[in-house]
Amino acid sequence: MTRLAEAVAAIEGIGAPDADAMAEARRRLDALTKPPGSLGRLEELAIRLAGITGRATPSFDRRTIVVVAADHGVAARGVSAYPPAVTRQMVDNFLAGGAAVSVLSRLVRADLVVVDAGVAGDGARPYGATGSGGARLVAQPIRGGTKDMTLGPAMTRDEAETALDLGLRVAAEVTAVAGIVAVGEMGIGNTTAASAIVAAITGSAAADVTGRGTGVDDEGWRRKVAAVEQALSLNQPDPADPIGVVAAVGGFEIAALAGVILGCVAARVPVVLDGFITGAAALVAAGIAPPVAARLIAAHRSPEPGHRVVLERLGLDPLLDLGLRLGEGSGATLALTLVDAACAIRDDMATFESAGVSGRAST
Amino acid sequence: MTRLAEAVAAIEGIGAPDADAMAEARRRLDALTKPPGSLGRLEELAIRLAGITGRATPSFDRRTIVVVAADHGVAARGVSAYPPAVTRQMVDNFLAGGAAVSVLSRLVRADLVVVDAGVAGDGARPYGATGSGGARLVAQPIRGGTKDMTLGPAMTRDEAETALDLGLRVAAEVTAVAGIVAVGEMGIGNTTAASAIVAAITGSAAADVTGRGTGVDDEGWRRKVAAVEQALSLNQPDPADPIGVVAAVGGFEIAALAGVILGCVAARVPVVLDGFITGAAALVAAGIAPPVAARLIAAHRSPEPGHRVVLERLGLDPLLDLGLRLGEGSGATLALTLVDAACAIRDDMATFESAGVSGRAST
Repeated sequence: MTRLAEAVAAIEGIGAPDADAMAEARRRLDALTKPPGSLGRLEELAIRLAGITGRATPSFDRRTIVVVAADHGVAARGVSAYPPAVTRQMVDNFLAGGAAVSVLSRLVRADLVVVDAGVAGDGARPYGATGSGGARLVAQPIRGGTKDMTLGPAMTRDEAETALDLGLRVAAEVTAVAGIVAVGEMGIGNTTAASAIVAAITGSAAADVTGRGTGVDDEGWRRKVAAVEQALSLNQPDPADPIGVVAAVGGFEIAALAGVILGCVAARVPVVLDGFITGAAALVAAGIAPPVAARLIAAHRSPEPGHRVVLERLGLDPLLDLGLRLGEGSGATLALTLVDAACAIRDDMATFESAGVSGRAST
Repeated sequence: MTRLAEAVAAIEGIGAPDADAMAEARRRLDALTKPPGSLGRLEELAIRLAGITGRATPSFDRRTIVVVAADHGVAARGVSAYPPAVTRQMVDNFLAGGAAVSVLSRLVRADLVVVDAGVAGDGARPYGATGSGGARLVAQPIRGGTKDMTLGPAMTRDEAETALDLGLRVAAEVTAVAGIVAVGEMGIGNTTAASAIVAAITGSAAADVTGRGTGVDDEGWRRKVAAVEQALSLNQPDPADPIGVVAAVGGFEIAALAGVILGCVAARVPVVLDGFITGAAALVAAGIAPPVAARLIAAHRSPEPGHRVVLERLGLDPLLDLGLRLGEGSGATLALTLVDAACAIRDDMATFESAGVSGRAST
């Protein structure tokens, strides 16, 4: 049995979130010195975390940010405001500790693991190298970037399965330590790949799920839409075959992230999604194993128009709406502060009884 | 010259946020390894903090939460789901460290100052007492709760001015140490007082700015609306006289919070507002000294319908929308995590130059 088949079987076995753990979490929250439900989404988050982990009061002292990076052949179509060399430069920046996700992961005391799933250019590092900024690199590139999806499939099905397996291996490593995993990505051109995946799986029109990415102008946006349309028309991915979709329109990092998500869900470890691209990966993962969706946490709402489609399809309501459009897991990392707040509230507040506070009036 | 007149003169003297400091903050943010503006509201927050403080890179290592508590005569009208005794019990809970704001202030490493501006019942403590939970109490009650505003003015004008002065004194104390101040409140019945203040100042209908508070049922909500209508009709507050409004429809804590806000703004210390009631206090403060509004930070959007009116009037766009309706400064305290994130990004990220990352493509 492959690692993927094992993960899918495990996910189907655990099924829906644990109703008993959720009810117990709700009981505890309702005993605290506050009107029931008055901490809104923080309370919902504490309950959701109970359902995912199967424990009423899980704690998340160890947390890991997994950022997967890869390059995209479609970048040659002029779909990004930045040159492809930036992908590798940013991996170096993650390792040196200078990127946004580096700063935010220190702020929330999270380990940072950077996965090279297919970054172009020189600079291979040994598996497990640790950067000067404290991040660890998992350098297992499938290939130095996908092929241009407007000219044919971005990758072979074998490559897609290898990338998924890489993600599953990373998940096994990080969930051995971390109680919660936030995911992020880096890859010049990857909003175009994500748009193509979301259009293929949901049947949305390319123009409805394609945005400005890191900041293309009107002409760049039209090139993105045209590239998505051309890739879908040429490769004709089957929406019922999520691995086939990711092979057709790509993203080694997106396929690997789908693997990370499946592996974490199978281990009952909550996964905090970042924005549009990790959302596309979650759509692939939920296509492979449908119970995944109810076990995810959406950190924030991205300005990318396709993100709304992803969130609706997965039934997720994001915690934050801060106009973040950087990626890297920046929003997911930030959302860990809300996880901390939800758990602190749940664990450290007094109860009506312990504090001698009167309950609701009988009026 | 009174403390209030001094604060108003200082605020009129400092005027609009510092454009040079904001431009310098923007320049620094744009040099960092991310597409310009891609961290959305976090970047806006860093820029706003520069404008308020007049410094491009202010730091906020010392931060204080000021929670002002008082009771309300109008609570006798059955406008709250909780009995008035809860106000004092919750002050004790703040001091013992068991309330939501206690937990969250520890999470964000903030000092907690609790001000008794008029809490009913026994239990006076010496000025400056420190609770077992580490919070400090400023016990300077104007009186043990306001009078019932449906039967006459909630307080005299002298009392309103004394409460404002109390807030100004607290602001002077806390801004001597803290670089940023988050405000909160406690007072059974105080959403009714806040609704009356907002209706009086903005001319909104009572039903449009009155909500469920901590959770009244339909009948309780109708009693709240009726109480607001009766208080406004009886006391006829002049919307152009914010001190008169707060005297008429009350809230010792709301008047004192207006003083805290004025004092912090005069000291160029950013004030993080919580929800509806601190928003009503800000409306009073901005009525007294209009440049106040541009120097506030709205932490979150409350489900209270009147909060939207307050935010629009003040021109504020809240950072969070988490369905928080507890008060106590819980949302304002939580928003300090975003202040920390904004400052960490600004200070700790690499620049394109230092990290050797390529800029935008010339396409």
